[in-house]
Amino acid sequence: MPSHLALLSCLLVLVLSLDKFLLHYLKRRWHSGGSIIPRIPTSPFNFKSHPRPMSAAGKWSETAMLVIDMQKDFVDPAMASPMLVAGGEAVIPTVAEAVAVARERGILVVWVVREHDPSGRDVELFRRHFYSGGKGPTVKGLKGAELADGLVIKEGDYKLVKTRFSAFFATHLDSVLKTLGIKNLVIVGVQTPNCIRQTVFDAVELDYEKVTVLIDATAAARPDIHLSNIRDMKTIGVETPTLEEWRR
Amino acid sequence: MPSHLALLSCLLVLVLSLDKFLLHYLKRRWHSGGSIIPRIPTSPFNFKSHPRPMSAAGKWSETAMLVIDMQKDFVDPAMASPMLVAGGEAVIPTVAEAVAVARERGILVVWVVREHDPSGRDVELFRRHFYSGGKGPTVKGLKGAELADGLVIKEGDYKLVKTRFSAFFATHLDSVLKTLGIKNLVIVGVQTPNCIRQTVFDAVELDYEKVTVLIDATAAARPDIHLSNIRDMKTIGVETPTLEEWRR
Amino acid sequence: MPSHLALLSCLLVLVLSLDKFLLHYLKRRWHSGGSIIPRIPTSPFNFKSHPRPMSAAGKWSETAMLVIDMQKDFVDPAMASPMLVAGGEAVIPTVAEAVAVARERGILVVWVVREHDPSGRDVELFRRHFYSGGKGPTVKGLKGAELADGLVIKEGDYKLVKTRFSAFFATHLDSVLKTLGIKNLVIVGVQTPNCIRQTVFDAVELDYEKVTVLIDATAAARPDIHLSNIRDMKTIGVETPTLEEWRR
Amino acid sequence: MPSHLALLSCLLVLVLSLDKFLLHYLKRRWHSGGSIIPRIPTSPFNFKSHPRPMSAAGKWSETAMLVIDMQKDFVDPAMASPMLVAGGEAVIPTVAEAVAVARERGILVVWVVREHDPSGRDVELFRRHFYSGGKGPTVKGLKGAELADGLVIKEGDYKLVKTRFSAFFATHLDSVLKTLGIKNLVIVGVQTPNCIRQTVFDAVELDYEKVTVLIDATAAARPDIHLSNIRDMKTIGVETPTLEEWRR
Repeated sequence: MPSHLALLSCLLVLVLSLDKFLLHYLKRRWHSGGSIIPRIPTSPFNFKSHPRPMSAAGKWSETAMLVIDMQKDFVDPAMASPMLVAGGEAVIPTVAEAVAVARERGILVVWVVREHDPSGRDVELFRRHFYSGGKGPTVKGLKGAELADGLVIKEGDYKLVKTRFSAFFATHLDSVLKTLGIKNLVIVGVQTPNCIRQTVFDAVELDYEKVTVLIDATAAARPDIHLSNIRDMKTIGVETPTLEEWRR
Repeated sequence: MPSHLALLSCLLVLVLSLDKFLLHYLKRRWHSGGSIIPRIPTSPFNFKSHPRPMSAAGKWSETAMLVIDMQKDFVDPAMASPMLVAGGEAVIPTVAEAVAVARERGILVVWVVREHDPSGRDVELFRRHFYSGGKGPTVKGLKGAELADGLVIKEGDYKLVKTRFSAFFATHLDSVLKTLGIKNLVIVGVQTPNCIRQTVFDAVELDYEKVTVLIDATAAARPDIHLSNIRDMKTIGVETPTLEEWRR
Repeated sequence: MPSHLALLSCLLVLVLSLDKFLLHYLKRRWHSGGSIIPRIPTSPFNFKSHPRPMSAAGKWSETAMLVIDMQKDFVDPAMASPMLVAGGEAVIPTVAEAVAVARERGILVVWVVREHDPSGRDVELFRRHFYSGGKGPTVKGLKGAELADGLVIKEGDYKLVKTRFSAFFATHLDSVLKTLGIKNLVIVGVQTPNCIRQTVFDAVELDYEKVTVLIDATAAARPDIHLSNIRDMKTIGVETPTLEEWRR
Repeated sequence: MPSHLALLSCLLVLVLSLDKFLLHYLKRRWHSGGSIIPRIPTSPFNFKSHPRPMSAAGKWSETAMLVIDMQKDFVDPAMASPMLVAGGEAVIPTVAEAVAVARERGILVVWVVREHDPSGRDVELFRRHFYSGGKGPTVKGLKGAELADGLVIKEGDYKLVKTRFSAFFATHLDSVLKTLGIKNLVIVGVQTPNCIRQTVFDAVELDYEKVTVLIDATAAARPDIHLSNIRDMKTIGVETPTLEEWRR
């Protein structure tokens, strides 16, 4: 009997510690578009999403895709950047595919990138020490600021430079999008708790009608971080399909 | 021997499942100001916090306290508002005490509140349906927009009206604070994943030198939501003491 | 003969100094909707106004009227405020009439007002000395911040508080207007070189499709100041009809 | 006696008509860097400039120079751009000298430039028609967007891209300057009624302590336009010395 209890307990331990011990496996399956999508933590959504007039539904000309921070220093481990996002490299193929789908549909693709001054004087205070040697992350003109291999800006796309988390912070992104008649946003890239989430919350604050985050074309340092942020975004009305669900 | 293993396993299970099985108990203790502060999820902080020049350290004249959304519709269950934050009422005493400490120290107290048009035309799209009857949450002039009982704006304090999550979104808060020479912020109120976190991230983007969130004077719908957001804020250099730790 | 020359010269002097000696007369005629509208200085407009797609033309639901700073301290000489705009009082009737026309047409009326902290800590630096005594101009709650006699906010109107020249500076005005589908603005109030012009230029920067300034429902300290600013606004595509021309 | 009156009158006529009859002469002298600086129209400044605490006075590390729009399409007639500012070419030497003085003093030099998308989708609506052929003014990467001959960005300078009149509109300029401790601005470039004035008014709204416009290192299409705008800027506390006066 004690051994049964032991077995049961071990099983429970295994299940509950999935986070730590099965991380690598899960990550590969999860990021490769496999069917094991961890359950998103339940949302405290205490009201039904309101069926607001979605005049734009289906009209892709009113949708833009924001591809955020898919630069070598963020997603290419070979760069050995202090800004590397652990889960970033794994989503490059999904991001590339999402961009391909967007182009097929005629959706405007906006490449949001960081490009900093070598001195770091336009970087957040808490990251400024990385720039003391003049070779900080995503410095304008250096290799680390380039898009990850496989991602290419094409004619008709728009490139937007930012210096903080949110693509909307102190940039003219809202100006360009609103004037083009863009009402809906689809967001991919890294990383979920910072640049993705800040861009998403700003988009909601800026009254974009429909904000969609592709859950498997975004990533964080760890799945639990990714998922707790997805949970919070769902709570404010953001849609979070997989690429497969979105492309249907 | 197996029984030792069993015991150990059980213990592990208990510890790891704290989140799920002891939630209710923890919540009551936590919200009642008890001493059990749940462990914050580990942060993927992959670099040491940089000891940046804190010229303002100790000078309270360079610090402001932002008290966010402590209005009846958010924290008083008697209002039966759809915007009620489950954990909100429990932190009112801690918020009141934090404000008292701030005043003793000569710290500027800024009361950040929502005050909406009865029509709801200045509310986020996903919440606009609450205003169809003309009696939506935190409408300017109605009872729900008042501060919770026990909280009072005094002479010398500053009141700031906002219409979105972040106290900095489309307001003149940064203008007032920067010009007054404010470099450090201490943030209390509700709720952690939305208005608190957005204000905090914006504060970091706006280069406030030191941003502090009082972990027991802020609240969310559930402890796990509160804590995952505290985790993410710590990752970008935000300090998260309890009121007791901060007042020392 | 010399006396003929003298006479002619005197006449010329009189004509050219109209500005200084006939000001009061001109002002009354001009502001009362009389036919003496001084010629606007020629604009260096070196290109034809582009006939851009005016999808909103004629649809008043896409137009908002901004009534700017029509507060006692700005336009009522009885207040003896240092902020009094010399030409302000004379346009109150025209502004009131413009608002009436807007309401007839179903145009949203936005009352943009300054309301400052008694301490003056949210006022521009160069005006802050007015607030040393605690009784500075347009302090929230004081008489000087009230609308001029004859102007009333009605149900359905929107009131917006600002703390700088432009109605768009650090306010949520653009957020409210864009989300309501407002594309065109009609602007009245005081004073032309500061709050009117800054609001107008910001409106152009924010891509409002059609920006209209009612030339006789706006005013400055002197007609030459009013007119040189009207000239510059015309140069960037702003329309500047009289109220009569606009109401046709 | 009549002849005395005649003489006096003629003199008055001459003085008062300076504006109209001596314009052409004045213009040539002014633009050629001559010493005749036309009298600035009197300001309706109805209060003394407040001697506010200028902690930064004399400390050049707290001053930045903004060099605005000194790009070929704005100031080089050879480009035959529709955006050419008539008075622009004449101030290139003064701007170059101002930059040299700034560098000697250790003042941060910020090169503010327009760089637009070939499609013109990030240009003001009223100028968008220039971009129909794909070769609009100051397109990123094209010759017209380059700095005028003789002006060079050096190491330590900062380059800031904008898409509207004001250097502060939807850019991170304020973020960079405030965090660097910049409190005072010196502004040069083109053109006075649009990009210069908008940047200046925004700077005042953003509480920069001292804003200085070098009157002979800025230019407009015509002297009267230049001067009426200088007049309005003086009224809100902006200093407007010549380069010679500033360098003393």
